[in-house]
Order: sequence, then C-alpha cells, then structure tokens
Amino acid sequence: MPRYKVTLAYDGTDFVGWQRQATGASVQGLLEDALYPFENQRIVMTGAGRTDAGVHALGQVAAFSLERPRDPAVLVRALNARLPPTVRVLDGAEVPSSFHPRFDAASKSYRYRIFTGPVLGPFEYRYAWHLPGPLDIEAMSEAASLLVGRHDFASFQSAGSDVESTVRELFESRVERKSNGARYLLYHVRGDGFLRHMVRAIVGSLVEVGKGRRRASWIGEALAACDRTAAGPNAPPDGLCLTAVEYAARLATQP
Amino acid sequence: MPRYKVTLAYDGTDFVGWQRQATGASVQGLLEDALYPFENQRIVMTGAGRTDAGVHALGQVAAFSLERPRDPAVLVRALNARLPPTVRVLDGAEVPSSFHPRFDAASKSYRYRIFTGPVLGPFEYRYAWHLPGPLDIEAMSEAASLLVGRHDFASFQSAGSDVESTVRELFESRVERKSNGARYLLYHVRGDGFLRHMVRAIVGSLVEVGKGRRRASWIGEALAACDRTAAGPNAPPDGLCLTAVEYAARLATQP
Repeated sequence: MPRYKVTLAYDGTDFVGWQRQATGASVQGLLEDALYPFENQRIVMTGAGRTDAGVHALGQVAAFSLERPRDPAVLVRALNARLPPTVRVLDGAEVPSSFHPRFDAASKSYRYRIFTGPVLGPFEYRYAWHLPGPLDIEAMSEAASLLVGRHDFASFQSAGSDVESTVRELFESRVERKSNGARYLLYHVRGDGFLRHMVRAIVGSLVEVGKGRRRASWIGEALAACDRTAAGPNAPPDGLCLTAVEYAARLATQP
Repeated sequence: MPRYKVTLAYDGTDFVGWQRQATGASVQGLLEDALYPFENQRIVMTGAGRTDAGVHALGQVAAFSLERPRDPAVLVRALNARLPPTVRVLDGAEVPSSFHPRFDAASKSYRYRIFTGPVLGPFEYRYAWHLPGPLDIEAMSEAASLLVGRHDFASFQSAGSDVESTVRELFESRVERKSNGARYLLYHVRGDGFLRHMVRAIVGSLVEVGKGRRRASWIGEALAACDRTAAGPNAPPDGLCLTAVEYAARLATQP
C-alpha cells in the first residue's frame, strides 16, 4: 500500500490535543475526517508526537497509507480544503511503506515561549506564557545546559504514562533572549524522545531558577532524584510548540 | 474633569467592530464596561477611528473623562484585568480636558497584509488576505503612489456614510514586499482621515492592478471618476490593521 508523510502546522488552542478523543476536536480526528472521502473509510493517521491540549505545531509529522496511489500535491490541497484554517498541511510526500513517523524520527524539536513584559499583546497571548517581571537568564541558561545528554528524566514526567524506559537523550537545551527588543524568552530543546509533559516540567523548573527560588544546580539534583515531586511545576501548554521532527536524510526524501 | 488617553491593541476577528452595537461584542463596549466600576456609571469612550468588524489595531487611541483623578498606570492595569486577552491597553496618560482623539489627530496609519503563498499558516490566517499566486508588485507600487496627496476619494467610499466632504490627504501610500522570504505583501497608508471602507477599497483596486486585470494608471482614472463603481471591490477586513494614530507632540505629552 502506498504510504504518505505530511508535515503539519496547527494552533492547538481550541483542540483537545493531537490524539483522537471523545471529549472534543482533535488534530488527528480532523485529519482522519478530511482523509475519509478518499477511500470512504477511516484511514489511520499516525503522528510523530502526541501534543497536549493547547500545544501548537509548526512542523508536526504524520503518516497514513492508502489503498491506491495519489499525487501528494493533490492530497495536500484536498486536505487543506477540508480542514479548518487552524490546521494546515504544509507539505506531502510519498515514503517507504515501512515509514513510521515516531519510531523512525531521529529527533524532535520544541520551542517554549515566555513573555516577561507587563502587557501581552492580543496577537500573542495564545502562544506564550505570560510571566511579568525579571528572570535571571544566566542562571536559567546554566540550568538548561545541565539537561543536555543521556539521562533518566523520570522527575520530569507526569503520571499516567506507561513508557518502558524514562531514559531520553537531549541534544540541545538552551535559553535564548529574543534580541529584537521584545520581552520574549525562548527555550529550545531537541531530543530523541520526550516523556509526557516533559518540556513543560523542564520549563516550569527553569522558571523556578529564573525567579531566584532555586539555584541553577538544583536542576541537576532534581534530575538525579528520579521523582516528579523533586522538579518544578508544569508550565502552561500555550507557550509550547513542536517546531520540527528530524529524520535521517534517506527516509525524508526517497519513497 | 480629568481626561485620559489610552493606546489600544486588539484582535478584531471576534468583534462587530470598534463601535458599540446591539448585534454583538464591540471594542468600545468592552472598554466602557471595564470602565464602569470606576464611577458606577457608563463612561463614554471616544475612539480615533471606527474600525470595522474583523479589522485589527496595534495603536488605536481612545479617550474618556472621569469625575475624579486616577493614576493612569492604575487605570491601565485595572482595564486590562477586566478586558478579554484580545483587547489590551498598552499605555495610558492624562491629557488636556479638551483632547479629542479623532479631531486632534494629525494622521492615522494603516497596514494591509496580503499572503501570496499556497498555504496560509494557522497563526496568520486571521491577519492576512490569502491571495495565492503572483502579483505585479511594480505595477501595484506605481498605482499606490498615484493616491498620495489631496484628492476627492469618493470612488473609494462605501455607501452608508454621512460625511460632509470626501476630500482627504494621503501622506504615504506604498506597497512593500516583505524581505524575510515570507510571501507577504504589505500596503502602508497614512492620511489625515479615511472614508468608510477606504483602505479596503484601495487595496481591492491595487489587487486588480497586481493581477494584471487593470493598468496602474487606471487607479488615477478611478480616483478622478468620483464614483464608487469606478474602483475595485473591497478587500476583506482580516488583513487590515490600524497601526498608529499620530498627534502633534504637545497634545501627546502634556496634560
């Protein structure tokens, strides 16, 4: 069966998350509904990562198989015509029939946005955590760098997940002050996989450091404890965005 | 009575426009409701310009008078606490009791955004007119420049307004291709006043030129006709934003 990979952007504000659920509109559900007319049956859409309710994507990747081949450009146009404007298919390509968007991913990249100014604008409030007041960026940067590498991230995982291992490798974990004068702080993280609410727990912990309630080295102690209560609270979902899913070049290009 | 000037930003998508109306939520209505508790009565909020339903603002200006003086910083915080996140008060200041945000304005600036790429992103669709395909920017620029100066803009005014004169002066009227690689086209216009739907009628006419359906010089003919049917259709409201209202320095700064 021919298989297709799509790259997606969505505003997660109004969705229950990526995964299809009975409680409300999901990104997966909307995509599967938009695919339905192609073969008059449910076509399963598998995503690279399950984003939570309120979490956004600029480069989510998903895949599905069809019984008969279709031009990827036609698929992209037809899906966009049937989807709400808050979910867009940016790109489509045929991939090997064995392609799995999650298992084949080399890494995933997330960005978290914090706004520290007094008034968060009407065009930005869905996409940032509003934390007015100063943050110690240097201490946050130091703390963020302690998470790079292969670690057991059990302290940064919410209850309710059933993963076999809580060991993950982070290739990048850094804090950036936006240089254009806007009062934005960005946290960039790239890893081979992420546990449930892991980025939000990391950001919530970094903010504890940035607000001066903890020293930078406390992040290392929280990591070593392998206990969720040792780390900080989860940051809200609004500031989080799945920016990209990276694949080995051969998977991304050749069918 | 002490008088105050506020600078406002809002996402116009979900509003019936600036002006208070019985048919739905308006920006003026929300602001007046937020002001009500200060003196337990309706306090009239006068705006510099009446933005239509769906039109946004980054720098709308409004003014109101109170019976007793208040710290402008306290007013700003209290209003923001009572307003939805789609309407934000960016700044507040005391002004002379004679200040009128519309009559005292030296000029108003609007920006209109057109997206020409194939897929308009989920974070941008509320703020742009999606017109996939090529546009002749040079011809649009030439046409836009013909509108600079003092002219009778009757051809660019929608029915239903009762202004005494349709003569207005434009100080700036230019088309800009965004240089950062994104497929955005911006139209910047600054004038001493604007007729009903005037910017949208200008943009709709510029697009007729950009799509090659009319020559650039046709804009001059449409202007000279002083007849609404001589110009192009109104562009949709989504792409339009009131970016600033300019005042003579003495009015903006001293109470």
